[in-house]
Amino acid sequence: MGGGSSTGELRVIAVTGLPELSAGDPLGALIAERAALEPGDIVVVSQKAVSKCEGRVRRLADVEPGAEARELATRLEKDPALVELILAESAAVLRAERGVLITRTRHGLVCANAGIDSSNLADEGTVALLPEDPDASARRLRTEIAAAARPTGGPLPAVVVADSFGRPWRLGQAEVAIGCAGLTPLDDWRGRRDGSGRELQATAIAVADQIAAAADLVRAKDSGVPAVVVRGLSRFVSAGDGPGAATLLRPPSEDLFL
Amino acid sequence: MGGGSSTGELRVIAVTGLPELSAGDPLGALIAERAALEPGDIVVVSQKAVSKCEGRVRRLADVEPGAEARELATRLEKDPALVELILAESAAVLRAERGVLITRTRHGLVCANAGIDSSNLADEGTVALLPEDPDASARRLRTEIAAAARPTGGPLPAVVVADSFGRPWRLGQAEVAIGCAGLTPLDDWRGRRDGSGRELQATAIAVADQIAAAADLVRAKDSGVPAVVVRGLSRFVSAGDGPGAATLLRPPSEDLFL
Repeated sequence: MGGGSSTGELRVIAVTGLPELSAGDPLGALIAERAALEPGDIVVVSQKAVSKCEGRVRRLADVEPGAEARELATRLEKDPALVELILAESAAVLRAERGVLITRTRHGLVCANAGIDSSNLADEGTVALLPEDPDASARRLRTEIAAAARPTGGPLPAVVVADSFGRPWRLGQAEVAIGCAGLTPLDDWRGRRDGSGRELQATAIAVADQIAAAADLVRAKDSGVPAVVVRGLSRFVSAGDGPGAATLLRPPSEDLFL
Repeated sequence: MGGGSSTGELRVIAVTGLPELSAGDPLGALIAERAALEPGDIVVVSQKAVSKCEGRVRRLADVEPGAEARELATRLEKDPALVELILAESAAVLRAERGVLITRTRHGLVCANAGIDSSNLADEGTVALLPEDPDASARRLRTEIAAAARPTGGPLPAVVVADSFGRPWRLGQAEVAIGCAGLTPLDDWRGRRDGSGRELQATAIAVADQIAAAADLVRAKDSGVPAVVVRGLSRFVSAGDGPGAATLLRPPSEDLFL
């Protein structure tokens, strides 16, 4: 898998008409019923939709903040219950200043507030945590989608679980892949040659992240569109579930900005 | 401009058949002749193509490295002439270790080697610098494209100049917009409300970067495809050239990772 020549054209299609989601909903089936999927498609699902269906929603009033959370909350002017949840989801605090709390989550993701937020949740006073294991979520969704709508003649649709992260040095958020199944997440061109036969330099392409970013362009943040189909990248779709988006995490020991 | 509801569908189309490019080539016209552009299209052009046409290619043998470049080159095991060019393009060195040189360029971009590389160049021993002013490059290309192929009935096609940058914390490169014209680069949802009427938190979307990422998916790194059309995002395309991709640079004073 991976590499290959230009596909020439890509289509990115919003999946509309899903109901308001809650814990236990069969998200893969709900998407498959509305998506007219073809072999080699990639289904990009928002983290928020996955978290809701997996019951990863918490009521802040039910959270008892500890001493560290209370201290940090005072300093950052944040809700102590929210900070308690962030710390519980995190392996390390990287920055805690100017009202911003950047951590490395237990999954190894570096983001604000351990990926916890309250937008697009129906109930006041609730927040959604990231899925427990987003690669496992992607694999389960892929199986559910295949069971509900198995297109014939190619690999089963791949699944990406996507979330919006801020970035250092650049303003604005961009979507990244926090989980995936059936997709080559990183297209490694190192050692291969360009059109002139010169060795390409350090070009491993974060395909899964770019797919997540492309999908985000067809949904507005207030639309609640939880899934998008990306068609035309079957060269990155595999029969097996593959290594998942955990492959995209730079090992902390090799990171110059931790 | 900006915001609005979901478009439902996006198409991303590679522009093929361009000749090998060199200094002085009319890049905008060459693209327009091959692209069948429609009003509201966004033309994503690779930095390498822009740099070649702008004559931003340098022969390493012509560069006389200074003392700082020689010292850094020895420590990082890099070519002293390349390091001299990198320093000349940079406002600050952020990291110089483990063979990696991360700088902030004079434009304010944070990337490896000040964005200088040698892939997809015809002549051995040459490298391409980033455009002098990528937003100005995008504006010029937009004018050239409009002159060669002015589609009727909507805003002139927008232009994004895109390059692949590495990221902290995540492996693999992703494309970002280093220049743009006629495009809302940042879609600011702060203060607006989600589907449930709750205020959205810190959601300014780096639309221009996500467009650059989407475009990259239809070209392989060895294919030399220098331009891609993104169709279906006319809500972000404006009659005027707008603020450019410089808007996406986080002010160093507000950055927690410098």
